[in-house]
Order: sequence, then structure tokens, then C-alpha cells
Amino acid sequence: MASPFAPFIEPPYYVVIFTNQHGAPDDAEYDVMAEEMETLAATMPGYLGFEAARNEDGFGFAISYWESEDAIKNWKRHADHLNAQRRGRSDWYDDYMVRVAKVERAYSMKRTEKTAGDD
Amino acid sequence: MASPFAPFIEPPYYVVIFTNQHGAPDDAEYDVMAEEMETLAATMPGYLGFEAARNEDGFGFAISYWESEDAIKNWKRHADHLNAQRRGRSDWYDDYMVRVAKVERAYSMKRTEKTAGDD
Repeated sequence: MASPFAPFIEPPYYVVIFTNQHGAPDDAEYDVMAEEMETLAATMPGYLGFEAARNEDGFGFAISYWESEDAIKNWKRHADHLNAQRRGRSDWYDDYMVRVAKVERAYSMKRTEKTAGDD
Repeated sequence: MASPFAPFIEPPYYVVIFTNQHGAPDDAEYDVMAEEMETLAATMPGYLGFEAARNEDGFGFAISYWESEDAIKNWKRHADHLNAQRRGRSDWYDDYMVRVAKVERAYSMKRTEKTAGDD
């Protein structure tokens, strides 16, 4: 299975934090759309990675990483993604919040190795 | 039940994205520590909010929001939090990544209302 972690990249870069309450997390149609969007996003210029997690009650995050704000805007306006956003608002999400942020520092730990940058 | 969403706040502010693979997500001791840290963080200067989600396989996020980088550094160095970080590295997390980012834009949607800021 592929790692659920996005690759480690030296900052600076950008992140979109999409926090959402899914009203129907068992909807198979949603799963298909989410996978299509993840695959499509990975083909976009400036895409750096994607991570997601969801609680059993439907609250969760989709987090994507990008080289620039322009890359984020370009992805946001992709026709297929606009369609997915409309479906999300009309059918799936009870509540969501989107934050765009510039990653300034990053560090990581694996059980058998450490990559630094920690202060 | 309290909302799992952090409050909506106008940017700019800071976010710490803690992405992790938990090796023992059913460990009750972890749950106690996580709740203690969430409660303690909320008492720290510059704290703005907290959100978390985890998949059944143990991959998840703890995301906290702060007024400034100094507030983040101050929280990171709190003695009880340092102890929790040590326990996390030694006993709970197989793998984690921490990103500190400056939130530049934010917008949200609720099923019955919309708060703007969208571009």
C-alpha cells in the first residue's frame, strides 16, 4: 500500500487544509469522485502531495500541498474540480472550512530514522 | 457535543499540522494524554483552536491554530507537552511529520449559511 504521507519537501511551499463534516461518508459515489479528484490533482502543475483522514462520524481533512498560490488557484478552477466542488456543497458536506497557508517550517520522524529541521 | 471545527478566524494566523501514523490507536493511555494536551493547549497564550481526525488504520492529523510563531514555540516548550512529545516518539507514533504554516486565506460553508472570503 502506498504511504498515506505526502513526501517530505523543504519549505517554503503552500498547503490547502480542507476541513469538513461529511453528511454521508458511506456514499460510494463520493468515494469514486474523491479518488478521481486525487488522481487529477496529481497531474496538475505545482502539485506536491496529498493526505487525508476521517473519523467514523464523518469529520475529516483533505490536505494538499502545492508549489505556489497560483498552482492552487489553477487547480481550484479546473472544470472537473469545479464540478466536484458543486457536488460537495450540494450533496456531501454539511459544513466545511478551507484554509490556504504558506508552510514555513517542516520536520519529520520515522521509527528507525530521524530527518531533522527540528528546533 | 462540541463542534469538531476550530472557530472561524480572519487570517493571518498560524497553523501546526501534525500528521502521524499511530502504531497503537486503541491505547487508552494515549487517549488520556491527548485529551490532557488538548485541554492544556487551550490555556496557552495565543491559542486559537484545535481539530483532529484519524482513519481506522491509525493515520491521522492533529491541527492547532495560533496567533503567532512565538505562541507555537512557547507551547512546544511547555514541560508537560515536552513529556507528551517524548512519549509520542517512544511509544505511540511510527512516523510523523510536523509543518508550521502561516494561514493567508480562509473561507467556510455551512449547509444553511455561507460565510464568505472565497475568491
